[in-house]
Amino acid sequence: MTELSIGQYQLVANFFSLTIAAMGAATAFLWINRSQVAPAYRTAVTISGLVTFIALYHYWRIYASWEEAYTISEGVLVSTGKSFNAAYRYVDWLLTVPLLLVELILVMKLSASDTLKKSVKLGGLAMLMIILGYPGEISDASGTRWLWWSLSMIPFLFIVYELFVGLKKAQDAQPPSAQKLVGIARYLVVASWAFYPVVFVFPMLGIEGGTATTVVEIGYSIADMVAKAVFGVLIFAIAIKKSEGEKSEVTV
Amino acid sequence: MTELSIGQYQLVANFFSLTIAAMGAATAFLWINRSQVAPAYRTAVTISGLVTFIALYHYWRIYASWEEAYTISEGVLVSTGKSFNAAYRYVDWLLTVPLLLVELILVMKLSASDTLKKSVKLGGLAMLMIILGYPGEISDASGTRWLWWSLSMIPFLFIVYELFVGLKKAQDAQPPSAQKLVGIARYLVVASWAFYPVVFVFPMLGIEGGTATTVVEIGYSIADMVAKAVFGVLIFAIAIKKSEGEKSEVTV
Repeated sequence: MTELSIGQYQLVANFFSLTIAAMGAATAFLWINRSQVAPAYRTAVTISGLVTFIALYHYWRIYASWEEAYTISEGVLVSTGKSFNAAYRYVDWLLTVPLLLVELILVMKLSASDTLKKSVKLGGLAMLMIILGYPGEISDASGTRWLWWSLSMIPFLFIVYELFVGLKKAQDAQPPSAQKLVGIARYLVVASWAFYPVVFVFPMLGIEGGTATTVVEIGYSIADMVAKAVFGVLIFAIAIKKSEGEKSEVTV
Repeated sequence: MTELSIGQYQLVANFFSLTIAAMGAATAFLWINRSQVAPAYRTAVTISGLVTFIALYHYWRIYASWEEAYTISEGVLVSTGKSFNAAYRYVDWLLTVPLLLVELILVMKLSASDTLKKSVKLGGLAMLMIILGYPGEISDASGTRWLWWSLSMIPFLFIVYELFVGLKKAQDAQPPSAQKLVGIARYLVVASWAFYPVVFVFPMLGIEGGTATTVVEIGYSIADMVAKAVFGVLIFAIAIKKSEGEKSEVTV
């Protein structure tokens, strides 16, 4: 299908392995350090670790599927007939993307009803975004890909709007020491997420072949590491800052 | 045996993988968050995590068995001769279904003797229900399937009756803040469980072939995720609500 060189194939495999290591490390860091933050923020930190844990599992599967999809025969990379399963990414996103938004909402410590309302709204939009993207991803027809891409962009833009307008007010209500970090977290979500619809468009622009596959797989891996592991550590940092500001509440 | 298309085969595999991820995430969430609830409710939360952990193990086996049962040869899906092992589901249910009922009973915090009595009664009925279903499941004869299905429905209906009548009184005795959630939990058990006997009847109604297999496997996966992972998080939410209502008891 795609004409990968052996070098490209191994480069992608190494990036998948790097992602496994990063997700595993982030999971351990977040769960072990959970007791460092005030009880009110522990669920946010636990869920941050859940997201990297789920991603760890999927990258394990992705790595195995990549290994099984190709073999080297007489010095050339050949397809084994088992195709690389890109669906793992979508299954992963279906679970982790709503949870990522819940992390951000939880660490803001809004009222219980606001937390629930925003979690359901943003989480639901995120699931809709992933589900609408999938029929496009598995299609080879450019028209079909554009259709589902456009449909998927609608909830995406709603989420971006909600993060910039809806959560801006909540950010202003944060303690000054945490405001800057919360702002960074909001931008990090939007910046890392913007990568995905761009990568999706590559095949529709005629960017194909081994180099495109390599760029797409490495690109998704980097975006996942930023959106999940780096973002999770940032959520932890916010939780630490806010815990320090509410020291009397802390009981370990 | 069943004429699955490659697309159906992979869709089912992806659903099994999704279930593995969901069960793993639920287990981690429940066990890590266990200390958030008052000591009286920790066993209920621990057992909720046990249920998803046992399901995680069995879906791992189910996924592997599915992989081993089929292979792709010259672009068509062919059976390898090793048949897909549906018994994993029954072994799983034999362990998890009684525990699910125990979760619900424990989180209600009845008297010690009531807890024991109801656990033995409902847990025993649940085991009987699973055991009576199995001889039907492995039979191809419609008459045999109907016989065991009917026998299995007897304990099932007893459980439903017990949940609606026997536990209704216990629900009314719950603190007001938790009553609604306990009510949802009772309905969730009945609604998600009702799915299983319906799916069981499919082959007896002549619904067969690749599409039926796909619907059955995906249906069981979704029902298991709802009955175990979603239900477990609901039990945790009830435990949190009740802990808040009894704050003086909480020690972290």
